[in-house]
Amino acid sequence: VTLGGDAAERFAVEQGLKLESENYFFTQYRWDAMVRLRGTNETPLSEDVVVKLDPGSPEAAGTVGAVALDWAGNLAASTSSGGTTNKFPGRVGQAALIGAGVYANNATCAVSCTGQGEAFMRGVAAYDVSALMEHRGLDLAAAVELVIGQRLPGRGGLIALDRHGNFALPFNTEGMYRGWVDPTGKPHTAIYDTLQEWPLLKS
Amino acid sequence: VTLGGDAAERFAVEQGLKLESENYFFTQYRWDAMVRLRGTNETPLSEDVVVKLDPGSPEAAGTVGAVALDWAGNLAASTSSGGTTNKFPGRVGQAALIGAGVYANNATCAVSCTGQGEAFMRGVAAYDVSALMEHRGLDLAAAVELVIGQRLPGRGGLIALDRHGNFALPFNTEGMYRGWVDPTGKPHTAIYDTLQEWPLLKS
Repeated sequence: VTLGGDAAERFAVEQGLKLESENYFFTQYRWDAMVRLRGTNETPLSEDVVVKLDPGSPEAAGTVGAVALDWAGNLAASTSSGGTTNKFPGRVGQAALIGAGVYANNATCAVSCTGQGEAFMRGVAAYDVSALMEHRGLDLAAAVELVIGQRLPGRGGLIALDRHGNFALPFNTEGMYRGWVDPTGKPHTAIYDTLQEWPLLKS
Repeated sequence: VTLGGDAAERFAVEQGLKLESENYFFTQYRWDAMVRLRGTNETPLSEDVVVKLDPGSPEAAGTVGAVALDWAGNLAASTSSGGTTNKFPGRVGQAALIGAGVYANNATCAVSCTGQGEAFMRGVAAYDVSALMEHRGLDLAAAVELVIGQRLPGRGGLIALDRHGNFALPFNTEGMYRGWVDPTGKPHTAIYDTLQEWPLLKS
């Protein structure tokens, strides 16, 4: 079940997680961006504005997600986010929400999303990929193309993996930080939309 | 977007909503139930335990939802909940979550859910009704029967309405408080599963 606000932090402490002070999370780059935007309604995505401002900065990453398939055929998805810059206090974005920002089902796929939270919530985008595969019989590539290219009512991207090991990393933003490990164990990373960075592995 | 914890309350105040003190929400019946369950892991649904204990009590209602279709063809859904008795502090149930507990789309249907929050979140149940209609071409009655009768990984019910005015009020619990107004303006209400309380109106 979902926990919000202080209750989530209390639960983490009860479970023995180690907490860091707020200083631990401070970066000048993010602070400056927040000060610049404070008092406006702007909440830029790292996938657009921040990528454009400083593509090489390690602080330019926002949401962090992972999808995985184990040898027994279990699919898993995970999404973590600090939210958007200048966000509304107490905002719960799509990252934490099953169906909107994260979803996994051994029968279909594992999906982790990043982008405009409101769009992913309205589109129930992570589950939509699975529903298109299960209910309409699409393969992973066709399902994610439809969700990110046409159905999502906003901007963002996702990483997805099906039960055969096929994966897709689509986005409709300027760029999306992404990486994968191929069957030989070689890691690959990419930021912008260049074709050779989009191999489809077949199991 | 979703707001959690104190931030949701602050937002309500900023928007000019009138707040009541905690006393306003006190009922002896609910207090006794909470005291009885405190220290256990039980979080009974009003649809099961409480209905059985005292079916006539007005305090036995938990989640309150509504679905509506206007003359212009707009579908809307709304869900409100105090959560389950003896719930974990800070718990955000399915009621607040688009896709899990509430969903509306003019192309398909409006859905509002009640029951075990975790099951509705895992099954992305509200959106699943819409996805079965859109992606698999099912009508509303077939879609809700599949979701509540087979696909939901737990217990609960929902109220749903399609763009033609057909509605369905399925549940897999002991009972579900429900009501509707027929085209003549006559109101109907029901708690348990009796056939004559399930008319399907055609527009």
